[in-house]
This record gives sequence, C-alpha cells and structure tokens, in this order.
Amino acid sequence: MAAQSEIAGIQALCFDVFGTVVDWRASLIAEAEALGARKGVAADWARLVDAWRAGYQPAMDRVRSGELPWTPLDALHRMTLDRLLAEHGIAGLDEADRAALNLGWHRLRPWPDAVPGLTRLKRKYIIATLSNGNVRLLVDMAKWAGLPWDTVLSAELVQRYKPDPATYRAAITFLGMGDPGAVMMVAAHNGDLAHARSHGMKTAFVPRPAEYGPQQSRDLRPEHDFTIIARDFEDLAAQLGA
Amino acid sequence: MAAQSEIAGIQALCFDVFGTVVDWRASLIAEAEALGARKGVAADWARLVDAWRAGYQPAMDRVRSGELPWTPLDALHRMTLDRLLAEHGIAGLDEADRAALNLGWHRLRPWPDAVPGLTRLKRKYIIATLSNGNVRLLVDMAKWAGLPWDTVLSAELVQRYKPDPATYRAAITFLGMGDPGAVMMVAAHNGDLAHARSHGMKTAFVPRPAEYGPQQSRDLRPEHDFTIIARDFEDLAAQLGA
Repeated sequence: MAAQSEIAGIQALCFDVFGTVVDWRASLIAEAEALGARKGVAADWARLVDAWRAGYQPAMDRVRSGELPWTPLDALHRMTLDRLLAEHGIAGLDEADRAALNLGWHRLRPWPDAVPGLTRLKRKYIIATLSNGNVRLLVDMAKWAGLPWDTVLSAELVQRYKPDPATYRAAITFLGMGDPGAVMMVAAHNGDLAHARSHGMKTAFVPRPAEYGPQQSRDLRPEHDFTIIARDFEDLAAQLGA
Repeated sequence: MAAQSEIAGIQALCFDVFGTVVDWRASLIAEAEALGARKGVAADWARLVDAWRAGYQPAMDRVRSGELPWTPLDALHRMTLDRLLAEHGIAGLDEADRAALNLGWHRLRPWPDAVPGLTRLKRKYIIATLSNGNVRLLVDMAKWAGLPWDTVLSAELVQRYKPDPATYRAAITFLGMGDPGAVMMVAAHNGDLAHARSHGMKTAFVPRPAEYGPQQSRDLRPEHDFTIIARDFEDLAAQLGA
C-alpha cells in the first residue's frame, strides 16, 4: 500500500490501453478466426496476430525516427497487416476484409476487472486514456466495450508516440493543469511507467501476465519503485479509496 | 428537416459548450451571489457576470493577435475577473474567493434538454465537445453536470481559439478520420457554425434565446443554410434518428 500522503493529491488517472485495459491478443485472434471461417481462408491466426503486435514498436519507430511523417496507429496497423499477409502466404482477403480486420483494433475486449474498476475509479477521479492508439480508435473502443472514460488522450494529439516526453507532458497539462503529481499513470508495462515517473507523475503497475499469451516473459512484475502495485483495477480502486 | 442523404454519413457530433450546452449566465450569477452572501459582499453580480462574459472575446483576441502567448481559458477568465472586480469597486474577495469564483466556469448548469438529448444522441453517434474551454474545465463540468461526452476536444489541444481553422480541422481529423462531412458541429451561434461549414462539416443550429439574459438580440435565428435547425437537443436527436 502506498502512503496516504503519496496519493492524497492525485486528481486524474491516465491509462495505457493495449494490454493494460483490453486483451488485444484474444480479441484479435477471435476476429481473425471469424473472418477466416467466413471467407474460407485457413491460417495460423494466432501466429499472425502475434506477428502483427510484434510489428507495433518497429512501425512506430519509423515515425519516431522521421523515416515516416506523423502516421496514426490505424494506418501503421494496416501497413503491417498487408506486409504480414503476404509474408505468411495468406491469400483471399480483399480490401474490405483487410479494412474490417484492421478495425478489429477498435473492438478489443476489456479484461474482466476493467469496466467495474474504471466505474469505481471514475466516481472519485478523472479517468482518461493515454495511449498510442489514435483518437477515433480509442473512442470507438470505448463505445464498443463500455469503457467510461472522462476523456480520451492520445499520442495523436501531439503527433508523438509514447514514450516521447510530449505525450506525458500533454496529460499533465490537460488534466493536472501543470502539476505532474496530480496525475497517475496506470499501465501493465514497466517502461511506460518509468517514463511517466521521470516526468513527476504518480504510477500504478497492474500486471497482465496473459497479455502476450501463455509464453509471456516480460512485465510479469514491477521493476521500479512505483506508487502503487495493484492486482487488477478493482484492487487499484480499493487502494485509491474509490 | 434535412434530407436523409445529408445526414446519412454523419458519425460524430461536436458541440459548442458555453451557451449551447450550459447556461453560463444563470449559473455564474448564482455562484457569485452565493459567494457574496457568504462573504458579506454586496454587488450587482448579474452586471459583473455580463461584463465577465463580455470580456471573453477581447481576452481571446489578445492570444489570437499574439499579444499574449497561448493562455488557457481558465487563466484568461481570471485575468478578466481581477480587472472587473477592481473596475466595479468590489472589495473583500481574497485569493481563495477569486479562485473559487473562477472555478464557477467548471460548474455550469446544462439547459434542461441537454443531458437527455446528449444521452439519446450518444447511442447512435460519437458526441464530443469542441470548445474554447480548456480540457480540465470541460472534464470537470462534464463530471459535475453529468454530460456524457465520448471525449473532450478543446482549443487547448491545438493552442488556437475558435474560430481558428486548426480547431475545426482537429475535430475532423480526430473524429472523422479526415472526412469533414462525417462530423457535425452543433452550436447556438451562427458564427461558429458558419466557420464549421466552411471546412466541410455538417451543421446544426440550436437557438438559446436566453443565453445572454432577457435582452438578448443576437443568434435568435439561423442566418445561414445549416444542415439542421433544431428547437433543442431532444429535437436534434429526433431529427437525427437517435
């Protein structure tokens, strides 16, 4: 448990989304399998989805390095998908199928504790996303999954992908009105939280040991001195008195 | 009624807030009167509030012209308030009182049709603010008044005040994914809608004839060819099939 003095000034919580709030892997495998069945296309869809997510950081790196101009995540996802379908030898998906599969990122299922935990937290705190997903992706997902955000903050607002300092600073400006300690970052990823902490934000680590499937080896436990370690969002709400 | 073909492609609605969604005048007069009674300070509070709002465009003009660097609306409101308290000879309000009165802009009451209308519209459309209020002001107001926004869009995101083109373009990018006709601007003000229309957005005029009190002479009726004219947000929902 964090000391009460550490959490007394918190007014707003920012959540990483992919993996922290929603189970992208199971959701996308189900989307892809359903599409494959509908179109009579057989493939190792779990392998495709894992490769799709493995292409996430490299795609953003092309923007971070300046090789690509600002490109929203929907467009990066689509570029990676088109490349992978060719590499995996998956044929028979036309333009409409690919567009629909790419929109699967707008329909990710929340972890079971996410909606009840967020609903409790929203009573006492401002709750917002702080995600590399583009605004429309995050808004669509919230409507589809019933995620009760007070507002959506996205890398797209500053045209920089996390962990660029501009992303955390924007959250501190918009929600904390300039006081970094008034804003807590919540994530299942040590790296995201370490960056948030370096900007003066409070931090909460919520492990999601099944995010990457049964073989997950990363982010199983906190690796830094975060403000709160919570089992899930219900535990986070309890520790924050919400 | 608008032609069905005109509204078929609309996916998101952006709302002007001050005057369109909330009754800033009656709310702030009540806030100021309560503060005056608590502190034993007598004043013509309605006159102060009308002058405060009259200072709104001139304060933003100082930012628009470059005389001031980017300054969020909370800070502009406070500068105007301090000047007016002196000009109106209102003494006896200390720093905490002034800060509390300025935060009255975060606690404005919705017009009676606003929450039921937005709740209906949210089932079918993305609903967002597009306001010159800063993000925290709009988020606080939403929580206080029960405004069920899917997300909050603000001039603060682009550091330009409406009607700067950047504000409308940001809404089109974030919500419509680049298609201006997928986004409808809703406002009680002809000027705001005329600008939105010039960027290809759909438009809905909802008159608020009491916004400026009993003497209101502006924006009593639509002055351009807007997509929809609605009596209130419930009528807007009905016309949009929500």
